Amino acid sequence: MITTAVYIGTSLDGFIAKKDGNIDWLVKFESPEIGESYMQFMRNIDVHVIGRNTFDKVLTFDPWPFEKKVFVLSTTLNDLPNHLKQKVEIISMAPREVLKYLSDLGFSNIYIDGAKVIQHFLQEDCVDELIITRIPVLLGDGIPLFGLLDQALSFKHEGTLVFQNGLVKSHYKRAGN
Amino acid sequence: MITTAVYIGTSLDGFIAKKDGNIDWLVKFESPEIGESYMQFMRNIDVHVIGRNTFDKVLTFDPWPFEKKVFVLSTTLNDLPNHLKQKVEIISMAPREVLKYLSDLGFSNIYIDGAKVIQHFLQEDCVDELIITRIPVLLGDGIPLFGLLDQALSFKHEGTLVFQNGLVKSHYKRAGN
Repeated sequence: MITTAVYIGTSLDGFIAKKDGNIDWLVKFESPEIGESYMQFMRNIDVHVIGRNTFDKVLTFDPWPFEKKVFVLSTTLNDLPNHLKQKVEIISMAPREVLKYLSDLGFSNIYIDGAKVIQHFLQEDCVDELIITRIPVLLGDGIPLFGLLDQALSFKHEGTLVFQNGLVKSHYKRAGN
Repeated sequence: MITTAVYIGTSLDGFIAKKDGNIDWLVKFESPEIGESYMQFMRNIDVHVIGRNTFDKVLTFDPWPFEKKVFVLSTTLNDLPNHLKQKVEIISMAPREVLKYLSDLGFSNIYIDGAKVIQHFLQEDCVDELIITRIPVLLGDGIPLFGLLDQALSFKHEGTLVFQNGLVKSHYKRAGN
């Protein structure tokens, strides 16, 4: 049994970053309380699947922030820095193939991250859990979390947590349509 | 002192209706609890400002659902059905002119409704309160609640209420940027 989860923050109008990738407007809401909530989620996942853009962004962080294995979905990335060759693998597959591949490797709880990857997985109905934290800002423009879907997807609300600084985290599980 | 409020339901991906205006996916979540929450909001407003599309939709309801006076923002609508001439007025003004006009008429709590009108008022930073109820569905396509803005707008979280059927209502007030 393999499950996929999205854990992400968005503006009230659904953007995860400004057009240029800037997330300062979001980062300024970080707090110990929110950090603990994220760590709690991270303890339950055993692998990351991210896109090329997210990978490029994370590469600028020092040190490398992920403890668990990371799979980068990319058709153009060919090589990795030496210090990441044990920690990162480049793959190029459709969502259901990714799930089969990771399941065969023994993984069971996948953290899906990056707008394009999330949209691609949702389009194929391959997201089991959505944990969305709303930041009390209308950004007005930027990189949208969600894209168009061929079919509507129903979710079941599992719980909502309000942080002291006004962020609202809601947890949803995929439900039958 | 005049204040404007938006009270609206949206899908998790930010749509208030399907492309054709259909809101069955939303209406099926109606409940006494949600109705009471809406009535509580309605008791505090004294006038509606809606757009042409919302007006056309409401015209199909029987009986006319609004107790309070309704102003329809439209540049193309010229006439009203006889039974509405006391209840509805057509105006064609920019958001700040609307506020001045309604304030001069003695109104103080405006309910702003309809996607285009909401977007227009937000673009001019003329929305004081946002009360957004998230329906646990990714609609995938439709009429978006929010549009592009020239500037980001910060809000302060005032409270969040989770309804028994999984809808999450969050109340925000405009805060300094």
